[in-house]
Parts: sequence; C-alpha cells; structure tokens
Amino acid sequence: MNGHDKKAPSRRCFLGTAGLAGAAASLPASAVKAAMPDMAKTTMPFYGARQSGITSPMQNALYFAAFDLNTERRADIVSLLRRWTNAAARMTAGLPAEPGRQEEDQPGLDSGEAVGLGPSRLSVTFGFGPDLFTHDGKDRYGLAAKRPAALVDLPRFNGDQLVEEQCGGALCVQACADDPQVAFHAARQLARLGYGVTTLKWTQAGFSAAPETKGTPRNLMGFKDGTMNPTGHELDEAVWAGAEGPGWMVDGSYMVARRIRIALEHWDRMKVMFQEQTFGRKKQSGAPLGARDEFDTPNFNATDSDGNYIIPETAHMRLGAAQFNNGAQILRRSYSYNNGAVFTAERWPPWTQAIEFDSGLFFQAYQKDPRTGFIQIFDKMSKFDALNQFTTHVNSAVFACPPGAKQGGYIGESLFESA
Amino acid sequence: MNGHDKKAPSRRCFLGTAGLAGAAASLPASAVKAAMPDMAKTTMPFYGARQSGITSPMQNALYFAAFDLNTERRADIVSLLRRWTNAAARMTAGLPAEPGRQEEDQPGLDSGEAVGLGPSRLSVTFGFGPDLFTHDGKDRYGLAAKRPAALVDLPRFNGDQLVEEQCGGALCVQACADDPQVAFHAARQLARLGYGVTTLKWTQAGFSAAPETKGTPRNLMGFKDGTMNPTGHELDEAVWAGAEGPGWMVDGSYMVARRIRIALEHWDRMKVMFQEQTFGRKKQSGAPLGARDEFDTPNFNATDSDGNYIIPETAHMRLGAAQFNNGAQILRRSYSYNNGAVFTAERWPPWTQAIEFDSGLFFQAYQKDPRTGFIQIFDKMSKFDALNQFTTHVNSAVFACPPGAKQGGYIGESLFESA
Repeated sequence: MNGHDKKAPSRRCFLGTAGLAGAAASLPASAVKAAMPDMAKTTMPFYGARQSGITSPMQNALYFAAFDLNTERRADIVSLLRRWTNAAARMTAGLPAEPGRQEEDQPGLDSGEAVGLGPSRLSVTFGFGPDLFTHDGKDRYGLAAKRPAALVDLPRFNGDQLVEEQCGGALCVQACADDPQVAFHAARQLARLGYGVTTLKWTQAGFSAAPETKGTPRNLMGFKDGTMNPTGHELDEAVWAGAEGPGWMVDGSYMVARRIRIALEHWDRMKVMFQEQTFGRKKQSGAPLGARDEFDTPNFNATDSDGNYIIPETAHMRLGAAQFNNGAQILRRSYSYNNGAVFTAERWPPWTQAIEFDSGLFFQAYQKDPRTGFIQIFDKMSKFDALNQFTTHVNSAVFACPPGAKQGGYIGESLFESA
Repeated sequence: MNGHDKKAPSRRCFLGTAGLAGAAASLPASAVKAAMPDMAKTTMPFYGARQSGITSPMQNALYFAAFDLNTERRADIVSLLRRWTNAAARMTAGLPAEPGRQEEDQPGLDSGEAVGLGPSRLSVTFGFGPDLFTHDGKDRYGLAAKRPAALVDLPRFNGDQLVEEQCGGALCVQACADDPQVAFHAARQLARLGYGVTTLKWTQAGFSAAPETKGTPRNLMGFKDGTMNPTGHELDEAVWAGAEGPGWMVDGSYMVARRIRIALEHWDRMKVMFQEQTFGRKKQSGAPLGARDEFDTPNFNATDSDGNYIIPETAHMRLGAAQFNNGAQILRRSYSYNNGAVFTAERWPPWTQAIEFDSGLFFQAYQKDPRTGFIQIFDKMSKFDALNQFTTHVNSAVFACPPGAKQGGYIGESLFESA
C-alpha cells in the first residue's frame, strides 16, 4: 500500500466541492464496492476516543513539527485547534485541508501537492507542550493549573548534548503516512492554518521500512529495535492515561521525543560480535543472545563458561527491559532520520574528524506517565548503555497528547472546555 | 510496489552465502514462478551499455551523495570504482554490498538495515565531477586531458546564492529506490567502501510522489512539473552523449544538480491565478493556460482581449520550452526535499522573518551537453522567470556520468582504460 496504489481514493476535490460521499455517488455501485476495501486499507480513522498515530500501526514516513505560540489570547488557541482538527480530519480522509472551491482570485487554500495521492494511511496526532501551560513563568491562557503532573520537564540526562532551539515547543503535530509527500503536506497545511498564531520551532522528517512485514523494522545500525514493545492489554496499560491524572487527559498519552544522532561511520567499523553484545541481540535474526528467534524470551541470568552474562550488563536490551525498570513499559514508535552530512569530530577512537552523516533515530515513546516510563528507563540507560558510545541525544521534547476528538468537537476540547 | 511487498525477494544473504540463484533453488518451483513477475517489477538492471537511473522511470526516494577524493594515486580510484561497481550491482539485485559471510569477529560488511526490504527498484548512478580531472590546478590522476569540453564549470547565474561547501564534488552517487531506507543504505555502503580514499562532501535526500500514475508528479508548489520532458527518440537525442565528444563518454550523460529552496510560506499566500500565471499552467489539471489537458500543446501566441499573452512572457514553462531555447531539451529528474526548518528572512514582501521550511526541489537534469542544455535554458530563465521570486539556488554541481558497466567491468572503465 503506497501512494502509487491506483485504486486508492484520490484527493479529487481540490478545485471542486464533492466530498467523498459525492464522489461515491458519481460512480457506479460496482466501482464503489471495489474501492471500499482499499479505502479501508489506506485510511486511518481520525475521530475517536483516542488519537490515532499512537498505538496504530506505523506508516512508512513521518513529518514532525513543533510550534511556538505568538498570541496572548486563549480564544486564538481554541480557534486554531478547531481549524487544525477539521483540517486533520479532512486530510486523513484524502481531502484537501479546507472545504470549498479554490477561487482563482484568492490566495490558495490547500497547497495542492497531495492531489491524487490518496489518504496514504495518514494519521495526524497533536500534542501540548509545557509551554502551552506556562510561558516564561506566565499563565497566558489560564491553563497553568491544569498542567498534568505527568507533563514534567525532562531532567538533564547523562550525555545530553541538546541544541536548545531544536527542543520543546508549545504544540506539536506528528503526521505519519505511507507517502512522505502526504505526511509533509499535512504538516505544512497545519503550519499555514496557524499563521499569525503559531510559528514553526523545529521539524523532523523520518522513515521506517517495512513495518507491515513480520518482525520489527531495522534501525540504521542494522538491528531490529522495538521488539520488546508492549502488546495487547499491556500496551493499553502502558500507554493510555486514566483516572490517575486530570480528567481532561483520560484516554490521552504522553509523548517523549528525542533526536538521537548515531555515529554510523564509527558503528560500521565495529565487529559484528561487539555490535551484538552492545544490543544484546543477534544482528540477523534479532534473537536475544543465547536464544533462537526474535520473540524468544531473553534469559538474562544465563552465563558463559567464564561466568559472564551472555546478555551483558551494559546491553541495550537488558537495560531497557521492564523487569529491570520496576516494570516500566513504553511504546516506542521511532523513525530513522537523515539530515544530510555535516562536519563531525568524534569523541572516541579513532577520533575521526570528517564530514559524516547527520543521521540516526528520531525516537518517540508514548506512555501514561513519563516519570514511570521514559525517565525511569533512560536515567539508568543514559549512564550504562554500551550503545551510548555511538549515540548523542541532540534534541528533546515532551508533550501531553490529549484524547481524540469526536465529530463536531476539536482536539483539546476536554482541556479548554473543562471547568 | 514498495518495501512492504511481501512477495519481493528479500536480502536473505546477509549472514549467508546463497545468491539469488541459490535462494531460488531452495524454493518449490511454483513459488519461484510466482515470485518472478515481482522480481522483474522491483529490480532495475545495473549492468548495461548505459547507466540506469537516468532515463529509467523515477522511484519514490532519492539519496544523493557527493564525495571528495583524498588520494594522489590513480590506482586507488580504479580500485574504488571496481568496489563501487560490484557493490552497486549486488545491492540493486537485493543483495548485501559485499559477498561472503559476516564474521562475528570481524568488522561488519554490509551494515544490514536493508535486510528483508528487497531490491525496491534500487538504481545507483555514478558521476565524475570536474575535480576528478583537475584538483586545485593539479592533474592528480593523469586525467586532465580527458576532461570532456561538455563537463564545463557552470557559470554564475543571476540570483545564485550558492553555499560553497554544498557544491561540486569529485565523484557522485545517485541512489534511487522506492523505499528511502534502501536508497540511503546504498549510498552509505558506498561511502563506507570509500573510507581512506573518499570523504563525503554533501548529501541530499529527496522524495517524489506517485511517479507511476498517469500524469506528472506534483512539486511542493502543488503544480505538475516536468510535463515537457522529452520522450522517445527526442529523449535519446537530448540525453545521451555520442560521437560529438570523447569516446569514453559515448552512451554517458551529463548531470546538472541544483538544490533549489522554495519559499513555500510565501507561495502559499499567493492567489491561485497568480500561481498559474507564474507557471503558465493550470494548477489542478496541469494544462497549459488556454488549453484543456496536461499534455495539450501550449499555444504560446494566443493573446487575451487586451493583447497580452495568455501564457505570460515570464511564465516558467514558456521560458523553459525548447522552441524558445534553440531547441534545447533536458531530461528533468528531480525530487522534492525537506531539510527541516531554519530561520529565514524573506527578500520580498511581506518581508517575513521567521523559522520556515528549508524545503524545495533537488533539481537534476540530464543532457548530452550542459552548454546547449541546462546553461542555455537557465541563463535566460534565471533572469526572467516569474518563479524566481520564490526560489533560491543554494547548491550547484555538474557531473559527467559515464556509460554503464558490463559484467566483469567497472563504472569508468572507458575513462581509465582508454589510451
């Protein structure tokens, strides 16, 4: 399923007025029937109790954008969120961002580059950063008292090399689709709809290969990453906020985003056995060291003839495992990124100085509370993980992703309309 | 067809030794037969008289890398090109970059992130920049006399805002595939195989939507771009070098690459009619102004009741048309790009200063001679094109792409082995 799927419903309404229903009405019944299964396959529901793009299957492409707010007026934010909600609902259905006909003598509505590409499984997920609640100590929108305790400012972690202007944000948009042009298009329309109220703060494009095939996608280190993601009941438990926090966040989730640069050139010079000990997994199969298949239960107690753990104490997957983190589980939903090539001075042997790939993992994790999720896990990991020799966290943000919107409502309604 | 196609042949040989033939031998005959059509659909031939990735259909994703050379020895270059040729041939067939089994106690061969993704229509196209022939006035490799006259240093064009360290390069690799992870993987393996001989100079990732559907892909301005690309006999005439130049370049082509930043935020504020007059086409249909369908012949002489050209004199497509450029034709094979968001001060009303998308078109054009191709067309365009209000050329390069390699040979053999 991708943008080339000729049966996917197209964004035909660019200059016209026909909605999906209208388009269907103009087709013979057999064509409508034939198009239906593809429609279901390529369209992600937008409205619902929970936002999509969190526990829903990953798409091929990500476009992430964080925004600052330029207004002092609460009504501007509500109006923006209404526009964003309507636009997101339309775009996920394969329609242009705004209804109505493009008028030739008016500034353009939807910029048009997604015409004909279909919904492409687009999901648009919104988040609220700490800055929405308090900005430079000021309660601009009367929301300070509603800031959830779980929306913490992340502590400084060992090894952090954060670039301040690439961190945080008052609002964020995570657009995922199978076609990168559809994902970028969505983020761009939302940026445009925010003119005067928002400005872009930072953005990141990402890609993920083959999430639909059996097993876990490989990261740019060549390893399967995310095998231990929770599933089923555990997933619901780990991800969704409930009665433990403010009512407006019930069925929402907290997202931690970290741009993690990976020293690919250095990693590629390592022995495979060393790489495997760093992850705690076999490279080819993804199996835990000492096991056979990717999803085999790791035996963390097994030792070799010298008494050393087969899965080393500093192995990435041991340090991340729930059983060594007070049961902490997070849902990782990360994309690889490449931002070109830049001059780099390595901190480790062979101390290379060269133009190297600015590339790595745009890590995103969802959880019901970052304090018992990402922070719990990463505090230790940032100190002991053997992978840290190859990774640098250069960007960091945390967002409260509110529950989904119902038809006619808007994202964030529970926050802005609650007493 | 994309990386999720479950029937696509996978890179199974990561830790094994079986080639494609071996893999096929282990399958029942019916499975082999079933897999064959997909194999053909997803694999681009690498060996041949001409390089693929030039006139072959565009894929969804581009990864482009330009390299500097660190060696004084001609033999190093030949050895590198042999390694690159073999690796490119293997990767386009869905195999890891190098043959042989990964040894656990050795540094890794192929980095592994394309295991399981299939060939994904990967093409790898190589080019030689002016710097290969003469570097700082020095003929490092005894090639200076073989530099084709057509491999000219591009003149400075009106409006150029080139960032020097993002221009040129002695060698380039254009990796295109339907899956961006496959394209990046290929460029990365070639960079790795060049350690000690090459260093990265600059890179660019790109995306293109739906090249296989009817009509021309839309650029980020929402317009179909490239409609006037030559086809059939005209294409061969326009693209491939022949007897007019050095023998070693016969069946090669010259590539001009320009990173063109587009002021999307400014463009999106323009009236649709203005946008259409800028391009000389209708936005929705792609039809030339005054015509009905995308591929209708434009009537450049038609005027309105005031005597003004319907397709304005400054319209992008008029200025690019062969008939106004001494018949000059080039094959445009461009990808959209997004490199995040950066602080931008606009040169035009409304003189916005803000964080804006660093986004636009990574323009690539192939031709038999840039002097009668890109330079001929763009010299005028850079002065008069109404589109220039929204575009800035920030990066520029020109490469001689030699003919294809035959099995057992290597890319550039005609250059290095000729008398």
